[in-house]
Amino acid sequence: MMQAVAPRFPFPSIESLPDDIRSRLLAVQEKSGFVPNVFFTLARRPDEFRAFFAYHDALMDKEGGLTKAEREMIVVATSSANQCQYCVVAHGAILRIRAKNPLIADQIAVNYRKADITPRQRAMLDFAMKVSQHAHLISEADFAELAVHGFSDEDAWDIAAIAAFFALSNRMANVTAMRANDEFYLMGRLPK
Amino acid sequence: MMQAVAPRFPFPSIESLPDDIRSRLLAVQEKSGFVPNVFFTLARRPDEFRAFFAYHDALMDKEGGLTKAEREMIVVATSSANQCQYCVVAHGAILRIRAKNPLIADQIAVNYRKADITPRQRAMLDFAMKVSQHAHLISEADFAELAVHGFSDEDAWDIAAIAAFFALSNRMANVTAMRANDEFYLMGRLPK
Amino acid sequence: MMQAVAPRFPFPSIESLPDDIRSRLLAVQEKSGFVPNVFFTLARRPDEFRAFFAYHDALMDKEGGLTKAEREMIVVATSSANQCQYCVVAHGAILRIRAKNPLIADQIAVNYRKADITPRQRAMLDFAMKVSQHAHLISEADFAELAVHGFSDEDAWDIAAIAAFFALSNRMANVTAMRANDEFYLMGRLPK
Amino acid sequence: MMQAVAPRFPFPSIESLPDDIRSRLLAVQEKSGFVPNVFFTLARRPDEFRAFFAYHDALMDKEGGLTKAEREMIVVATSSANQCQYCVVAHGAILRIRAKNPLIADQIAVNYRKADITPRQRAMLDFAMKVSQHAHLISEADFAELAVHGFSDEDAWDIAAIAAFFALSNRMANVTAMRANDEFYLMGRLPK
Amino acid sequence: MMQAVAPRFPFPSIESLPDDIRSRLLAVQEKSGFVPNVFFTLARRPDEFRAFFAYHDALMDKEGGLTKAEREMIVVATSSANQCQYCVVAHGAILRIRAKNPLIADQIAVNYRKADITPRQRAMLDFAMKVSQHAHLISEADFAELAVHGFSDEDAWDIAAIAAFFALSNRMANVTAMRANDEFYLMGRLPK
Amino acid sequence: MMQAVAPRFPFPSIESLPDDIRSRLLAVQEKSGFVPNVFFTLARRPDEFRAFFAYHDALMDKEGGLTKAEREMIVVATSSANQCQYCVVAHGAILRIRAKNPLIADQIAVNYRKADITPRQRAMLDFAMKVSQHAHLISEADFAELAVHGFSDEDAWDIAAIAAFFALSNRMANVTAMRANDEFYLMGRLPK
Repeated sequence: MMQAVAPRFPFPSIESLPDDIRSRLLAVQEKSGFVPNVFFTLARRPDEFRAFFAYHDALMDKEGGLTKAEREMIVVATSSANQCQYCVVAHGAILRIRAKNPLIADQIAVNYRKADITPRQRAMLDFAMKVSQHAHLISEADFAELAVHGFSDEDAWDIAAIAAFFALSNRMANVTAMRANDEFYLMGRLPK
Repeated sequence: MMQAVAPRFPFPSIESLPDDIRSRLLAVQEKSGFVPNVFFTLARRPDEFRAFFAYHDALMDKEGGLTKAEREMIVVATSSANQCQYCVVAHGAILRIRAKNPLIADQIAVNYRKADITPRQRAMLDFAMKVSQHAHLISEADFAELAVHGFSDEDAWDIAAIAAFFALSNRMANVTAMRANDEFYLMGRLPK
Repeated sequence: MMQAVAPRFPFPSIESLPDDIRSRLLAVQEKSGFVPNVFFTLARRPDEFRAFFAYHDALMDKEGGLTKAEREMIVVATSSANQCQYCVVAHGAILRIRAKNPLIADQIAVNYRKADITPRQRAMLDFAMKVSQHAHLISEADFAELAVHGFSDEDAWDIAAIAAFFALSNRMANVTAMRANDEFYLMGRLPK
Repeated sequence: MMQAVAPRFPFPSIESLPDDIRSRLLAVQEKSGFVPNVFFTLARRPDEFRAFFAYHDALMDKEGGLTKAEREMIVVATSSANQCQYCVVAHGAILRIRAKNPLIADQIAVNYRKADITPRQRAMLDFAMKVSQHAHLISEADFAELAVHGFSDEDAWDIAAIAAFFALSNRMANVTAMRANDEFYLMGRLPK
Repeated sequence: MMQAVAPRFPFPSIESLPDDIRSRLLAVQEKSGFVPNVFFTLARRPDEFRAFFAYHDALMDKEGGLTKAEREMIVVATSSANQCQYCVVAHGAILRIRAKNPLIADQIAVNYRKADITPRQRAMLDFAMKVSQHAHLISEADFAELAVHGFSDEDAWDIAAIAAFFALSNRMANVTAMRANDEFYLMGRLPK
Repeated sequence: MMQAVAPRFPFPSIESLPDDIRSRLLAVQEKSGFVPNVFFTLARRPDEFRAFFAYHDALMDKEGGLTKAEREMIVVATSSANQCQYCVVAHGAILRIRAKNPLIADQIAVNYRKADITPRQRAMLDFAMKVSQHAHLISEADFAELAVHGFSDEDAWDIAAIAAFFALSNRMANVTAMRANDEFYLMGRLPK
């Protein structure tokens, strides 16, 4: 019989959580209608939880040269290379919504080189994938290629930092068998 | 601006096709409401088209120890390893329908080891992935592991042949930049 | 003691085969003096047998921009990368005969970059090997490089399709422990 | 002529930094006699700086089943696999000091399988390296192997989280061409 | 037009060689009827020539637990993994002669796991290939597996040393574009 | 408890050695103050010992276009890629001394692309690493790139031969669990 993969580490009860973490969970529940499993998974380690989401927010919610959809493209492409189910499914949903494009997440997850993206976005993902998979080979030529497409050095840092942060996130999700909530699968696929 | 990836080889007009091929395209249009791009892509080579679909049908429509959903699982898992966008998206849709499960295709595409499948299906996919990626290492021990899960030698052939056939198919799809029709993305995701 | 590797799936008796398949085996026996094991291996699955050889003949016997020797070069190079004993030995024999060159098959099998081939053939094999091993990375630049050497888009399809077909064939041969007939080893090595 | 590799992103002046970050830099200067370059590199992005060090401290300074030397072993082994010069040199120094062993860091950096460590530490590093390089393959069997050596599930999380955090750190160090301060090379090598 | 690959470094004239080296070339010419290109290639560096052949002879001509045919099996299997045309073709010829088996060299070159060898020889080649490709992973378990098949520690050293010596040899042959003499291709293929 | 890794093959007693080998060991003891373990490890096979050091001396002590420090750079970079603890530690020490630079060995061992070296040395190491890891791909373009940096064909041979020789050496050291003597770790790190 089919069996749902269980989380490797049990979730804490919401009552047992420190106030600030419980508040964040309730806020996301209020906003999204459900609590993504990444919150429950990491909540059992409050200090790591706080650092993780502070880092996440610093990279994904900031101003800068990348749109929010482009940041999610980086997450989906690199998380797929790392075979991280939670991140591809959950951030695929966010990408569809941010890009207002129901096809883009699946395209990027399978092979971003064949996705309906601009040459600038292709250059962004080439750089992100190199950071994700072979960062020791990054050289000045990679920055130069980004510059050809109008990316500044600050943009390059943003791309690299997102790829690097999800290198962490993908590993934690795979080790904890983090399951994407059922709600993510359909999000952003239907016309409004 | 976003741009749809164009097929590398132009599609033939439906009028220019031999009768048997045109009939198959019209039949699938009648049944599905659209013609999947694999038909148009391969139709410009009628002899290869006929051999391809004869092979496909011999493996995917036959009786045997694997359910139709299980065959599609093999297609999705191995096509994802080969980064074949057409096959993951199109056969992911078929898998959702055959398995009556809106989540299973995305789970298997990203990391089949974390998917909601039975131990028997896990063994099936381990074997299929080894055939797909390292067939030169297949040994008697791999058949023995399948047997533990109740697979016969004929089942083992079926699993291997599907993985091998899509090794061909994935390569042709990537070389021809075969695009999954938009219709596939949502198929099997909504409750009936 | 040395022991010959046995086929993983028993061969059917020739009497038990459908008429069309038995006829093909008898014809190849008549022409070559022996029946290559690929025929006996696949004959136990008549529908797959027919599709396999229809596909094979559509690619290897057709007219086009590649000579028959060049098509066999593709088979030998890609089958060696996939460590397929049957295909390297059997198609190595055919390559020696088609190219009237007793050295070429061994050279290409070990390292085609050091073989006595033309720059055009080198470009052909570079493309074929990329399709065989990394088809997801094929891009317009690869077609352009082929064009520099005079290959048309139809030629590119031919190269890709042969590499893709033997991706299938190599996997089936490895899974079934398909053994190259002893006759192949010496074919084409002696002056006429 | 030899030339020192310059940091890819200029360091901010210490005066320009927010108070909390400047204080941390001054504190580490006070304690160590110099400011490790990771502080200056990340300080130009204050929010990321704060999250990075909060995460680092939550993993490296906490109580738990791993000694501080063992945590540094994980950093050195995984950072070497990722070819991160800063992390291998700087954390190699810390490892020598924490382990009171002038040889251990170089041994682990080159090939931890040949280092003078206990079987328990070998199991710890096998797990850490799998998280670092192939987290998608982590399964229940890996946790069971840790348990054989007395590691609890919380210890497993610690090992995984350190490997994951330095997956992030290694990528940022490589992208920013972060240079290990000269002081690190000799630290912990001389008898007190 | 087909063109023979030229040696990357010109051969010295036989007259220009030191006496001992010229004598060895003349002796091998006398015995074999031709001078294998490895002698001419390395002769331009007399000191390296002497060390190379002293090492070669110490490993390949000594007494010990491995037959001469088995030593050549190691050469052929590991040289094929390294895509060294000279070594596979030249030592393939020697293997056919030593084993009195016209098929064995091609079988081992393509996929030794499917060759007509004994389980003991299979264990020998598994160890040799691990030394050749992943020596950093060799552990006590590998020696234990050899012992199961009756190999002593001295035999293990022999296997490892042959694999290691041809790791050197394969690299020099590839860098110098060392060409296998035409005579090797047919040697050992015909019944006496 | 920490345990020092024991050599896989016991060392012979110095009295049991042939005169020439004992003399070499005593000479190196005289000069260096200790006998590096590579001498004791290989001494149990006198013929291989003699060939090994003859080869080593022919490459490392000869005149030519590479400085002695540059030759050691090649050893350290390629031995690190092969995860050879003995060679990285022992030749790292020699490199520090020859280059009169206490930092260079660790930098090159972890990631030579980030080391304080000249563009010419970078080109030298790129070539050496390709010979070490992918010699079958070496082509005329690699020699041309060396020539741009002023390396002659003889220099190219030297670089390749050193990388090839340590391909052998690294494998023997890993198989024999050759331990770097404690003395090496600190050599060349302190100002004279």
